[in-house]
Parts: sequence; structure tokens; C-alpha cells
Amino acid sequence: RHPRMHRQSDYRRKRRETEGDRIVKIRYETMTRKELLDNIRRKKSFLCVGLDTDIQKIPEHLKNDADAIFKFNKAIIDATAPYCVAYKPNLAFYECFGIEGWTALEKTIKYLKQNYPDQFIIADAKRGDIGNTSAMYARSFFEHLDVDAITVAPYMGEDSISPFYGYEGKWVIVLGLTSNKGSHDFQLTEDADGTPLYQNVMSKVSSWGTSDNTMFVVGATQGKMFEEVRRVVPDKFLLVPGVGAQGGSLEEVARYGMTDDCGLLVNSSRGIIYASTGEDFATVAGQKAKELQVQMEQLLADKGII
Amino acid sequence: RHPRMHRQSDYRRKRRETEGDRIVKIRYETMTRKELLDNIRRKKSFLCVGLDTDIQKIPEHLKNDADAIFKFNKAIIDATAPYCVAYKPNLAFYECFGIEGWTALEKTIKYLKQNYPDQFIIADAKRGDIGNTSAMYARSFFEHLDVDAITVAPYMGEDSISPFYGYEGKWVIVLGLTSNKGSHDFQLTEDADGTPLYQNVMSKVSSWGTSDNTMFVVGATQGKMFEEVRRVVPDKFLLVPGVGAQGGSLEEVARYGMTDDCGLLVNSSRGIIYASTGEDFATVAGQKAKELQVQMEQLLADKGII
Repeated sequence: RHPRMHRQSDYRRKRRETEGDRIVKIRYETMTRKELLDNIRRKKSFLCVGLDTDIQKIPEHLKNDADAIFKFNKAIIDATAPYCVAYKPNLAFYECFGIEGWTALEKTIKYLKQNYPDQFIIADAKRGDIGNTSAMYARSFFEHLDVDAITVAPYMGEDSISPFYGYEGKWVIVLGLTSNKGSHDFQLTEDADGTPLYQNVMSKVSSWGTSDNTMFVVGATQGKMFEEVRRVVPDKFLLVPGVGAQGGSLEEVARYGMTDDCGLLVNSSRGIIYASTGEDFATVAGQKAKELQVQMEQLLADKGII
Repeated sequence: RHPRMHRQSDYRRKRRETEGDRIVKIRYETMTRKELLDNIRRKKSFLCVGLDTDIQKIPEHLKNDADAIFKFNKAIIDATAPYCVAYKPNLAFYECFGIEGWTALEKTIKYLKQNYPDQFIIADAKRGDIGNTSAMYARSFFEHLDVDAITVAPYMGEDSISPFYGYEGKWVIVLGLTSNKGSHDFQLTEDADGTPLYQNVMSKVSSWGTSDNTMFVVGATQGKMFEEVRRVVPDKFLLVPGVGAQGGSLEEVARYGMTDDCGLLVNSSRGIIYASTGEDFATVAGQKAKELQVQMEQLLADKGII
């Protein structure tokens, strides 16, 4: 009923198409797989910066600012944007401040769109509910916030995920094999045929979506498991958290997970945004992002992608 | 670091304990299992009213009111409170309006707390993330919103759920066997021993929590499956959506799912709050809630609970 998508190769913005003074269509922003890959090649980076902005961890001189979260994010974005292709705010860090948190999130997304329209924006929300409710979440993230992608939890099955596919050009990023210790509790449970749950999730979800609208979360901490993952989803983009603070290795992820068109967005949050807690936090964040970009450039070159 | 709980049998409110002018402790609101059961007995009802307030479905005369969502909720609450023991706003319906939605949600929760302190408040959020992030969600729901319970998705395992247990007296309601069609996609997948995933979830989560802080979501549409569920979790409270609009039967749920101390909170959302779309919406919602309460009274009496 709402959303009609549309591809914009040169620029991305929400557009109202009118006939006389009647709005006939609202177009939301999208980024295609090809555009994402072009950005990766051009910037020689497949880095995603996680905006997990915790008020208790941001530098002292910002803490008492009423607009602290947004100001922190803005400085981090300005310093890291040359080295990354995506940003991923985790909703938990904004929700916990209620209205103030949502305001900071909306300002951050708006700032990104206006100043860095080539950045892929992921709402890390891990949502999922019965069909009519997931449709509300889709509205929330793809219309109201108008981000490019949202992370979704698969436990409730097809009708909890399919409403997100109602937005042509938007992306659904489904939890596959996560980076935390608890990933072993259920995701590795094998069925009667010896197939672990996470592989059943990836297979089934792949039959609902395509490589142009579906990614999976696979934690960098899973190392060699990427070989298994690539057998199940050879051509899907993977969003890879867990490099840095959680201990995952970028080289291992690339060795086992990179495809001929990259197929990876590797996220670092704490390792970048809290690398310094002093007044130089943004400069140091930029340095950390650049360090990762340089490694990624080598990995992309080794694979013949750039 | 944050919240330590505390039991209040007569009234519930957030308290700051002070020494001189220094706050030494903030106590959050809680409702114990015994208090919940007392309310069920006193009100002869185990009804939870789902506040899934969709602006597109609320009566015409309210739609253009800037405070429409809260005014709708307030009228529904005033009309239904005598017949229920719990309210369950689903976050999706508030998030989709961003800041305005959050404002309406916070006002609704505050209104409930001030006027109906005997109501158990469930944030239906289905959250779950890596440990440090789930801790932020816990802060969001148990500190900022200070609700009694939150629904949580189990896919990411123990460390995604355990942060919610850090709040003594608060409740974690974990997805077990949901009411939607997609519940068959993964929840019924059997392991090598023939145990379906949802039963593995219930067993493992039961080893992390207790009957005093853990409930499970089991959809009313699952009918006879409640027998299976009760074999796995004989003494846990179950939050049961799917009566009404989704087609579940209250009698079947009670027959197979009710325990000697009730053990059920049965939710109805659309069947109550959208029973009428006219100016009489609140009156009709009250009637629908009362109809369910009358049936529940009989079921409680049949079981010898009242």
C-alpha cells in the first residue's frame, strides 16, 4: 500500500511524485547490490562502522551536552566516512533513552543521508513478529527512518520476515550464525539429517528472498565456519560483526567468506568508536577505520576485485 | 550496577532512597508471581489486553487528534481495566511513528502505572542481541519504561537473554511456540532425538530462569500442543496470544494449558480494541473484554482456582 521503490544510480533521496497537487507516489531511497559493490570498489573498503553509541562511554567533554549522542555520532561519521561504505546504528543504544534516543537516531540518519548519500545505512534492530506486526516494523524502518536495510531475527518464520520484502530495493539482513557465545545454544542444534539450525535458516530464507534483497549476519568469531556458510549461501552478502572487540579475525573472514564480488560487509563498533575516550576520539576513530580500510584494500586486491 | 528490585505488596512505584540529599538506590516496580495470581483470583480474569494501536484503524473522530494514539489507549484502558490483569503494548505499533510513537507509549505506560497500579505491564518487543546490547535493551525497558516484563527472542542464546535477569522482580517472556503460520518454519524442526526446537528453547531457558521471573509465549492457535508444552514447562506462566483475530480457542488453551495456579495470561488485541470503529469503540471494547472475563471466570472456577 505504501512503498514503491526505485533505483537511483546518481543520487538517493525520498521523492514525492505529484500530479497537480496530489501526491501519487512516494519513493524511498534504495541502494542496489551493484551500487554497493561499486562503492566497495571505489573506496577500496567493505567496512561498516557500528554506531553503538553508549552515553556512559563517550568522552567526558561531551557527556553533559544535551545533544551528546548526535554530536558524538557526527564527529565519528565525519572522521570515518572516507574509509567505510556502511553505517550500522544498533537500536538498543538509542531506545534506552526513549524519546531523546530516538531523536538522536533520527538526526544521525538524516545527517548521513544529507552528507554521505553513498553510505549504506543498516538499522541493527533484530526485529521479527507476526505478519501484521512485522509490517509495522517495516513501515518504521523503511518508511519513517528510510534506511537501506534492517536486521531481522528468524525464529518466527516466513510471515515474520516477508513484510520486509514488500519494499523493492530495500534489504533484509537475517540472523544466521551470530558472533556471541550464545550462538551455540540453538543455532548449532542439528536436525535429524545433521543440518544445524543456522543452515536451515539460511536455506529457507534464501528461498524467500534473493541476492539483491537478502543478506545474513555471520559473526567474525566463527572463523572457519565461513566455509560451511558459503556452501549454503554462495552468493549472498554477509554482514559480519565481531571483528575487534569480540575477537574475530578479518583475514580469516576474507579467506573463507569473500566471494568474487566481495560479498562481505565487515562491521566494527567498539574497536573504532571507543578507540580513544579523550578529546581526540574522532581522530583516533578515523585512524582505526583507516587501518581496517588498508587491510581490506589488500584483501580486495588479493582477490582481484580491485 | 543499576537496578535492584524490591517487593511491594500494597502499591508499586519507583522509589529513590536517599541518605541526606544523595540517592543511594533506585528501586523499580515489580510484581511477583503471587501478586499476579492474587490479581487473577480477585478479578476472576487472566486476560491481557494487547494495545496494538494502529493509527489507520482507530475511529475517524480521533484520527486527526495530535494525541490520537494516547487518547485511544486511555479510553480503551478505562473501559477494559475492570476485566483484565495485564496490558501488552506491542512496540512495533509505536516505533513506526518515531518520536511521536514513543511519546504516546510513554504516556500510556505512565497512565497505567498511576491509575491502575495492579495491572501487569508487558512490553511486547521480542528483543534479543549480544550480551552488552541486550543489557541496553534491558535498561530501556526495565529502567526507562520500567515495565514489569518484556518479550524476548531466543535465537541468539543465553547471553542475549541473561541481561534481562539482572533485574530482580522483573519478568522475561521468551518466545516458545508462536501463534503465526511461520512458527512451523523453524520452531518445529526436530533435533536428532526428535525434540522440536521450541521444546529445546523452553528447556534451556528454564535452566537459566525460574518460575518467578520467566514466562513463555505459546500461541493459542497451537491448541493441543499445550499438552506437550506443559510436559516441558509444567509450572511456568504462559503468555498466550492468538485468541480472537488469529482464531485460537480459549477453552482449548485452558483445557490443555491451565495449571493449579492458573499459569496463563491470555492476550486479545484486535478482537477487543477494534471491535467497533465508531465513537462507541471504548464501550464495545469493554463489552468484549467482559465477555472474555466471564468465560475466564467459569474456567477458573472449573479448575477450582476461585
